[in-house]
Amino acid sequence: MDNFTFYSPTKFVFGKDTEQQAGALVREFGGSKVLLHFGGKSAEKSGLLGRVRESLKGAGVEFVELGGVHPNPLDDLVYEGIDLCRKNGVDFILAVGGGSVIDSAKAIAIGVCYDGDFWDFYSGKAAPKKAVPVATVLTIAAAGSEGSGDSVITKKDGMVKRGTGGECIRPKFSILNPALTQTLPAYQTACGATDIMAHVCERYFTNTKNVETTDRLCEAVLMAMIHETPKVIADANDYEARANIMWAGMVAHNNIVGVGRDQDWNSHGIEHELSGLYDCAHGAGLAVIMPSWMDFVYKHDVMRFAQWATRVWGCKMDFADPEATAREGIKRFREFLHSIGMPINFAELGAKEEDIPTLVKKFGLPEGGRTGGFVKLSSEDIAEIYKIAAKASL
Amino acid sequence: MDNFTFYSPTKFVFGKDTEQQAGALVREFGGSKVLLHFGGKSAEKSGLLGRVRESLKGAGVEFVELGGVHPNPLDDLVYEGIDLCRKNGVDFILAVGGGSVIDSAKAIAIGVCYDGDFWDFYSGKAAPKKAVPVATVLTIAAAGSEGSGDSVITKKDGMVKRGTGGECIRPKFSILNPALTQTLPAYQTACGATDIMAHVCERYFTNTKNVETTDRLCEAVLMAMIHETPKVIADANDYEARANIMWAGMVAHNNIVGVGRDQDWNSHGIEHELSGLYDCAHGAGLAVIMPSWMDFVYKHDVMRFAQWATRVWGCKMDFADPEATAREGIKRFREFLHSIGMPINFAELGAKEEDIPTLVKKFGLPEGGRTGGFVKLSSEDIAEIYKIAAKASL
Repeated sequence: MDNFTFYSPTKFVFGKDTEQQAGALVREFGGSKVLLHFGGKSAEKSGLLGRVRESLKGAGVEFVELGGVHPNPLDDLVYEGIDLCRKNGVDFILAVGGGSVIDSAKAIAIGVCYDGDFWDFYSGKAAPKKAVPVATVLTIAAAGSEGSGDSVITKKDGMVKRGTGGECIRPKFSILNPALTQTLPAYQTACGATDIMAHVCERYFTNTKNVETTDRLCEAVLMAMIHETPKVIADANDYEARANIMWAGMVAHNNIVGVGRDQDWNSHGIEHELSGLYDCAHGAGLAVIMPSWMDFVYKHDVMRFAQWATRVWGCKMDFADPEATAREGIKRFREFLHSIGMPINFAELGAKEEDIPTLVKKFGLPEGGRTGGFVKLSSEDIAEIYKIAAKASL
Repeated sequence: MDNFTFYSPTKFVFGKDTEQQAGALVREFGGSKVLLHFGGKSAEKSGLLGRVRESLKGAGVEFVELGGVHPNPLDDLVYEGIDLCRKNGVDFILAVGGGSVIDSAKAIAIGVCYDGDFWDFYSGKAAPKKAVPVATVLTIAAAGSEGSGDSVITKKDGMVKRGTGGECIRPKFSILNPALTQTLPAYQTACGATDIMAHVCERYFTNTKNVETTDRLCEAVLMAMIHETPKVIADANDYEARANIMWAGMVAHNNIVGVGRDQDWNSHGIEHELSGLYDCAHGAGLAVIMPSWMDFVYKHDVMRFAQWATRVWGCKMDFADPEATAREGIKRFREFLHSIGMPINFAELGAKEEDIPTLVKKFGLPEGGRTGGFVKLSSEDIAEIYKIAAKASL
């Protein structure tokens, strides 16, 4: 196991009606003038925004509002948010929504405290050190952004999707009411579930040896997702299954199950080019990419894939042919994703095989460069994974 | 799943040589005058205390010292620590040791900020609201006190062992270097492992339905402990296994695996009377009590015990006789504890059956009272569990 630091100082307030505590929590963490940041009309229509506004007013917290966050959040709204915060002396940002809204709020939070262009943090020119405090009222179990110091934004010019991270943008508190996710359509619910499972897999496939505790914790989250996700696809109002998925989504991404090991985030990177170019849902893109990445890399550590296949997917170990067990695990993963309504190839996602050279170019590896924590991929390898993804079938 | 709040703002700095960061971390969390609190001579002899002192000096942090914490930490040293802190204007307490040292440090931390007798917090007269900041350099993977807001102290007068808890005594940071645990004798290592497993089991056996995510996380920690503990019993210097156990010990008790459900801490309470009366190791007492508690309560929810037996202990489900599966799980638990060198009955622990009435009286349930989150026990039930524990065999 490698040395590590684990620090997750977010206060999670979980359960029914917890959004009514928003105002008191903002006060507890020192906020007095809030930017209320949100997405489209669903939070307004459902009454959620109204309840949050009431809670803020009840606690004597002033606020300004900025809605309109796009599912793949764009830089132009971030610039608008930074201006709005500066003009109004905002000292706290409350994101009401899913990962996109939260990521947009985080970008605004670091942008307000930075003299240059906030995109510097996403292009790798600067690292976030200071931010306006951020908190969340989560409405989608997916990104794990409610418990992480990460943010992903898309630059409209060229549709480039990039991420940044830092302790200063980790939420002070996150309100997790599973009932708020009950209005989500099945497709978006499944996209969220796929994202959660991918967050675990990106940590699970590692070259670090002797990580049994975190292996078991990763497997636990995956098994819970396999058990709970079909329930919410069958019945959107299954509060209990929503609750299990919502907690799994946080645990999957605050890194408690991934400490002390090399991780591999190539599936996320390879997917980002798909959702950047086609504006598809991140989770749907992951459903197409992640098993294809596995097809491409499993021979690098057959026994790790066989462990995953047997422990998580209940495959019988084929001692004469462990590769067959590894492949069976990947097959069951793809079948599971298909069963919850996810696309598994380019055609089902709405991507085009002829765009592969564009996708690889946008991925932007330098000539001869390689990237990855489990298997270091070249541009040619990435093209190969897109090709597998293009033609994948059950 | 029940509503809950989860807040674990401790910064965990994990791995080799991390004790050298102690001084810088004290500074990071605002300390300038530290009480260095520790136990016996082993931390001095091993050089650990010397390295921590150097780190504090290097960071320009002043400190006073108070050693001599007893394995079941006593109130008299707490009083001494409170005086010492007040006289020296201490603004930060650094515990170097295991759960006992940390719990003693927490008691001092709340005592310093309280006008009355610190025991009020342990007798239930007062709840901790304010404390001097506490941090830890952990030397035993066991109590989970490095990541919890709990503390247990024994009152010398009558040897009464009682606990308290509050956010204000949750450590600001905890330094977890698995190498520091390599000097622990096998017996103490096994006691720690038993305590960790008990912390999970006290959470696992619940009446709350639909808690698959936390069930799976609990099972993950137990399976990791079953896999790693025999390795460190066989080879005290197995750093990797020590590391897995150390992280499991934190995860087992910061409550991330136990949120949203009723818990049952009767085994801990019933054990505390044993270690209070006989001054035996808490983990050893738990090895005797926990399976006996299971023998007594398993019929309350046979399927939960059968789930535990099959998922954690690899028992085959006996569909014609689920009770047999439940009993098989408890049997394997006891066999495992025995295999790592733990006592499984009163004789092996050094307890006496004739003391049972005294133990029950010290437990102190009011006439007709009952306690417990899974099964509510009366004084007669507790006596029965002690009787099972007295005579237990493989």
